[in-house]
Amino acid sequence: MGVGAWRPERVVTNEEVCQHIDSTDEWIRQRTGIEARGWADAGTSVVDMAVHAGAEALAAAGVEPSRVGAVIVATVSHPYQTPAAATQVADRLGATPAAAWDVSAGCAAFCHAVAQAADLVRGGTSEHVLVVGVDKLSDFTDLSDRSTAFLFADGAGAVVVGPSDTPGIGPTVWGSDGSQWDVIRNRTSWLEHRDAVAEAVAWPALQQEGQKVFRWAVFAMAPLAQQAIDAAGITAGDLAAFIPHQANMRIIDKLASQVGLPEHVAIARDIRTTGNTSAASVPLAMHRMLAEGQAPSGGLALLIGFGAGLSYAAQVVVLP
Amino acid sequence: MGVGAWRPERVVTNEEVCQHIDSTDEWIRQRTGIEARGWADAGTSVVDMAVHAGAEALAAAGVEPSRVGAVIVATVSHPYQTPAAATQVADRLGATPAAAWDVSAGCAAFCHAVAQAADLVRGGTSEHVLVVGVDKLSDFTDLSDRSTAFLFADGAGAVVVGPSDTPGIGPTVWGSDGSQWDVIRNRTSWLEHRDAVAEAVAWPALQQEGQKVFRWAVFAMAPLAQQAIDAAGITAGDLAAFIPHQANMRIIDKLASQVGLPEHVAIARDIRTTGNTSAASVPLAMHRMLAEGQAPSGGLALLIGFGAGLSYAAQVVVLP
Ligand SMILES: CC(C)(COP(=O)(O)OP(=O)(O)OC[C@H]1O[C@@H](n2cnc3c(N)ncnc32)[C@H](O)[C@@H]1OP(=O)(O)O)[C@@H](O)C(=O)NCCC(=O)NCCS
Ligand SMILES: CC(C)(COP(=O)(O)OP(=O)(O)OC[C@H]1O[C@@H](n2cnc3c(N)ncnc32)[C@H](O)[C@@H]1OP(=O)(O)O)[C@@H](O)C(=O)NCCC(=O)NCCS
Repeated sequence: MGVGAWRPERVVTNEEVCQHIDSTDEWIRQRTGIEARGWADAGTSVVDMAVHAGAEALAAAGVEPSRVGAVIVATVSHPYQTPAAATQVADRLGATPAAAWDVSAGCAAFCHAVAQAADLVRGGTSEHVLVVGVDKLSDFTDLSDRSTAFLFADGAGAVVVGPSDTPGIGPTVWGSDGSQWDVIRNRTSWLEHRDAVAEAVAWPALQQEGQKVFRWAVFAMAPLAQQAIDAAGITAGDLAAFIPHQANMRIIDKLASQVGLPEHVAIARDIRTTGNTSAASVPLAMHRMLAEGQAPSGGLALLIGFGAGLSYAAQVVVLP
Repeated sequence: MGVGAWRPERVVTNEEVCQHIDSTDEWIRQRTGIEARGWADAGTSVVDMAVHAGAEALAAAGVEPSRVGAVIVATVSHPYQTPAAATQVADRLGATPAAAWDVSAGCAAFCHAVAQAADLVRGGTSEHVLVVGVDKLSDFTDLSDRSTAFLFADGAGAVVVGPSDTPGIGPTVWGSDGSQWDVIRNRTSWLEHRDAVAEAVAWPALQQEGQKVFRWAVFAMAPLAQQAIDAAGITAGDLAAFIPHQANMRIIDKLASQVGLPEHVAIARDIRTTGNTSAASVPLAMHRMLAEGQAPSGGLALLIGFGAGLSYAAQVVVLP
C-alpha cells in the first residue's frame, strides 16, 4: 500500500573503501557494480533508520499508525539480543500497542516478513502490517576485510501491507540451506567473543565465502524466481519489474538473464550507489524504482531475497 | 499436533546461585517460586537444544521432517547476529530446504511464532510449521547480578502446527510497549561493548528493572488473557489449562487469580524447578503438563507470553 526509504547522508566512494583494503575502484565496479554506498553515522541507530522509512511508508499508504496491528522489522544488525528493534519502532511511530517483533533471515528477511504480513492480513489477525527491512551493516563489517568491506552498506526500506479486494502479494516460495550456515556469518559468536575479549580478539564482524555465495545465488535463485512466477499464476511477460536482493550487480545480471525476462521488465540496480544493505535492499530498490518512474505503481514486481542462512524467499507483488 | 522438550541435565539449586549473589534460598522461593533451574553446559548450543526439542515434537506429531514447510525459532540467545539458528535447526532435522527464520520478541516470542505458524498454515503458505522456543539465558546472564541471576535459565520446547478441520489455534491477541524497551534488555548494546572492550567493560548481560516488569505483567496481562478467551469465543470455564510464560511464580499466581479461572483449570507451574527460560518456557510447561497428565491432549489451553520489548501475545489452543 505504500513504500518508504531512508538512505544515509554520507556517501562512501570506492576510493574511500580502498584506504582500508588492497583493492581498486575498477575491481570493485567490475566485480560488484558498486560505485558508492551509504554509511550511517555513529549517532544513527537501526531503530532511527527504521522509523524514518516506516513513517514515509505509512504516509504513502495513508494509514494512521494507530491502525497498524503489527510491526515486523527484518534485520541482522540491531545491536541487542533483546528487546526487538520493532518494539521501539512501533512506539516511536505511534503504533503502540501493535504487536512487534524482529525477523532474522539474513538478506532474505524482508521477503520473509512480507510473507508473514500477507498471511497475518489474510488470516484476519492484523488489518495493517508495517514491514521494515533495515540494516546498518557498517557496524558489523570489518573495514579491513577484503571480502566484505566493499560490499556491505546501510539503509532502511519499509512497506505497508493491508487488506485488498484483489491479491496484491503472490504466494511466497522460500527456503533455507543450513548446511551452508557458515558461508555468511559473524566470524565469531558472541560467546567466543566474550571468552576471548581478554585476549583482545577482533570484533565478530560479518564474514563470507564470496565464491560459494556467488555460485549458490546464481544457480539456486533463478529456479526460485521461476517458481514464484508460476505460483502467482502469471508469466514473466506480465511483470513490470524484477527486484532481487541487491547483493552484487553480477548476481543481478546473471539472475535476470537466467530467468529470461522480456525486455520491458525493469530490473532494480540500486546497488550501484547503495551497496548491499541486506534486509533493506529490496524495499530500498523498490522505492527508487517507483520514485524514478522505472516501474509503475500497480505493476507486478518479482521480489527475491537471499542471504545468510542460507535463506531465500521470493514472491510476486503488486507495486504500491 | 505434537510437543517436544529439552531440559539441561545440570540442575542448579538456589544455594549454588547464592554463591554468586547476596541472597538466600528462602528469599528466592518466596519472591519467585523457583527452587532450581537448569543450565546447559558450554558445549550445548541453542541450535543443539532446539534440534532435540524439535525432533521430539515432529515424532510426537507423526510429521516427517520433509513435510515441514517452515521452521521458526523463537529466541533471544542465539549468539550470532546472522545467520538465524532456524537454518541450522532445519538442516539438522532433515527439514532443509524449509523456510527458516528466527523471531525476536523476548519471552513472548514463542506465542508470536505460533501466531505466524497458524496464519502460514491457514493462508496455505506452509502445510506444517515447526515452532521452537529456545533460550540459553545462562550465556547472557551476569551471575553476580542480584536482579536476574536467580531467575534466568535454559531450555527448549517445540510444537508442530499443521492443518486441521477444526480450529486448533485461536486468534492471537498481542502487542508491545516500546516506551518500556529499557526495562528488560542487554545492559549495553553490542556497539557500546565493542567501543568499550579496550576498557574491559562488562559483558552485555540481560538486565531488568524487576519491579516495573512485575507491575506491568500483573496489571496488563490479565486483561490480555481475558481478550484471548473472548477472541476464541469461549469462556474461562471451557479451559483445561492456563500456560502463562514462566516468569515468576508470584506473577503466575496473580495472573491466575485476576483472570478468575475456575478450580478445574490446571495452571502451569513449571518455573519451580525450571526457572525462567524465556522463549522456551511456554512450550516446556506445556510439555510437562501433558507428560504428567495435568492437562489432557485435546483440551483447551490459554497460552500467554510476555517479556522484553515489552512484548506480549496470548492465544487459546487445542493441546496436542
Ligand atoms: C566477493 C566477490 C566479489 C569476490 O570476487 P571473486 O571473483 O569471487 O574473488 P576471488 O576471491 O575468487 O578472488 C579473485 C581475485 O581477486 C582478488 N581479490 C579478492 N578480493 C579483492 C578485493 N577486494 N579487491 C581486489 N582484488 C581482490 C583475489 O586476490 C584474486 O586475485 P588473483 O586472481 O590474482 O589470485 C564474489 O565472490 C561475490 O560477488 N560473491 C557474492 C557475494 C555476495 O553477493 N554476498 C552477499 C549475499 S547476501
Ligand atoms: C525481581 C524480583 C523478584 C525482585 O523482587 P522485589 O520485591 O521487586 O525486590 P526489590 O528490588 O523491591 O527489593 C526488595 C528487597 O529485597 C532485596 N533483594 C533484592 N534482590 C534480592 C535478592 N536477589 N536476594 C535477596 N534479597 C534481594 C532488596 O535489597 C530489598 O531489600 P530491602 O527491603 O531490605 O531494601 C521482582 O521484582 C520480580 O519478580 N519482577 C518480575 C521479574 C520477571 O518476572 N522478569 C521476567 C519477565 S519476562
